[in-house]
Amino acid sequence: MPELRKDPVVGRWVIIATERARRPSDFVTEPVRPRTTACAFCEGREDQTPPEILAGRPREGKPNTPGWTYRVVANKFPALRIEGELEPAGEGLFDKMNGVGAHEVVIESPQHATSLAELPVDTVADVLLAFRERMLDLKKDPRFAYVLVFKNHGEAAGASLEHPHSQLIATPIIPIMVSEELAASAQYYGLKERCVWCDMVRQERRAGVRMILEAQGFVAVAPFAPRFPFETWILPWRHRAAFEDSTEEELRGVAGILGEFLRRMNRVLGEPPFNFMLHTAPFREGQLESFHWHLEVIPKLTRVAGFEWGSGFFINPVPPEDAAEALRASAP
Amino acid sequence: MPELRKDPVVGRWVIIATERARRPSDFVTEPVRPRTTACAFCEGREDQTPPEILAGRPREGKPNTPGWTYRVVANKFPALRIEGELEPAGEGLFDKMNGVGAHEVVIESPQHATSLAELPVDTVADVLLAFRERMLDLKKDPRFAYVLVFKNHGEAAGASLEHPHSQLIATPIIPIMVSEELAASAQYYGLKERCVWCDMVRQERRAGVRMILEAQGFVAVAPFAPRFPFETWILPWRHRAAFEDSTEEELRGVAGILGEFLRRMNRVLGEPPFNFMLHTAPFREGQLESFHWHLEVIPKLTRVAGFEWGSGFFINPVPPEDAAEALRASAP
Repeated sequence: MPELRKDPVVGRWVIIATERARRPSDFVTEPVRPRTTACAFCEGREDQTPPEILAGRPREGKPNTPGWTYRVVANKFPALRIEGELEPAGEGLFDKMNGVGAHEVVIESPQHATSLAELPVDTVADVLLAFRERMLDLKKDPRFAYVLVFKNHGEAAGASLEHPHSQLIATPIIPIMVSEELAASAQYYGLKERCVWCDMVRQERRAGVRMILEAQGFVAVAPFAPRFPFETWILPWRHRAAFEDSTEEELRGVAGILGEFLRRMNRVLGEPPFNFMLHTAPFREGQLESFHWHLEVIPKLTRVAGFEWGSGFFINPVPPEDAAEALRASAP
Repeated sequence: MPELRKDPVVGRWVIIATERARRPSDFVTEPVRPRTTACAFCEGREDQTPPEILAGRPREGKPNTPGWTYRVVANKFPALRIEGELEPAGEGLFDKMNGVGAHEVVIESPQHATSLAELPVDTVADVLLAFRERMLDLKKDPRFAYVLVFKNHGEAAGASLEHPHSQLIATPIIPIMVSEELAASAQYYGLKERCVWCDMVRQERRAGVRMILEAQGFVAVAPFAPRFPFETWILPWRHRAAFEDSTEEELRGVAGILGEFLRRMNRVLGEPPFNFMLHTAPFREGQLESFHWHLEVIPKLTRVAGFEWGSGFFINPVPPEDAAEALRASAP
């Protein structure tokens, strides 16, 4: 019998279609492996990108020259532009404003043929520290309400370049998915005076069936009502609303669990394309008692079609308990 | 300069990324053309599907034999099952219920190598009449709150079979996307005592720039804040909340505009994969003054990636005014 499950935060229902259930090996995806050998993001080609905004340069050295461990540059084809004012305007019923924002790329390694799953934990931590630093800087710009950190890995997950990288887009508006989570979390807090995410983590750690990993203050858990097969959330056990308030030690913990999770996912699913997206408290919200940052990782294994686009219901052929079991069992 | 635009109903913002703007010919999609010549949905293979629930049989004839113009059968691999009770249950924080529902397939033609764009208007009208008849029948089941009618056309749009078909899924819950539209439409009605969809159609007909087609009481319009390039909505000019209350004459009008729109889309975009999804008033809502049925058509031209999944913001490289102009210009 299929099962309908409700996400306890946003109230989105999903169909766990057990009769369509599949084993990890049933998902045929092209493994993500580099086909070209060098690109504009590679070391030695610093002049092919916009100038660097931030970089890891352990031996100091001049900006936009070799010798870096990571680089942050403006996106050459930005979805939003850094210059200008918002100028909100109406057009009859409709509302619009200028597409002002920031769109940056974090080049995660000078090497082309690698990925977050293969990089040493210190290098992954440096990437997370770069996210933090850019968020703290963008926060100073009064035009921006939020910054979404995300990653597209593999062509099927929307990546146009192979070289390991993630992106940040700062927006003048809190994205609708985040504001729905915020509103629902605040409603729960109003009722219970507890953070719904803290409650969820406590319940998952007690139940164990959807737990994947647990280390250094962080958990990787298969959510109760996942939209996608093998969808996984990484979040701190302790209440933390804003990612950019993390200490360096905490970010080393995130780096450890993220790398270990990605290696397990690669073993179980054969290096699938994937996305991750960071949900954190908006810039002007301060220390929210009701919200809790979390990183959502979604391997790209299924197609989203008319039913999902029309209903917001997702059909997921893999119960999260099965996904978590497979990922737990794949310890090195 | 990119532009941020807000959907006037659900408040979703999209980024019209004019600097990434593209012409129709820049979207490389595989044209959807049948590769196999026959399948379980073809005439003469009626024993290979579940028994028919409804069929067009102009020369009468026995069920599940040749001689039909369309057939409705249960989905062989249903996402939801028709038997059983909902039995809602809790699991700590979480809510679940049995996956009870209906999942039916409308086989639109006995021919394999055709599509809604090529079928005569009377045949398309018969398909729409079949939707109506199945909705009216499923409405009698007190377990169901909504039925989503949708179509996946082409593999990239999620179709697993080439033979022209659409689907219905009846759910025990109003899908979150529909309930968000309902709530927002009711709020607008509360303020203005007018239907927001009626207001939108009036404004679009006056402005003209996003109008694609207009005939027999229906419009095809590029929405002001489309998620996807060439996204198009088909809806009646006059206020109509529930699709299943349409008269036969009205459905002939829908068939005419839908077929004509699909032919233009095929000419402009080279027979792209696409989805359509029908949004209509829920079964138990009666004659809503605030809601207006509409059919959303989305050609599958771009990939949805981390930014969209994480934010609910969509980046659309084609302004709807340009899409509408290209579709208007492609008159036969």
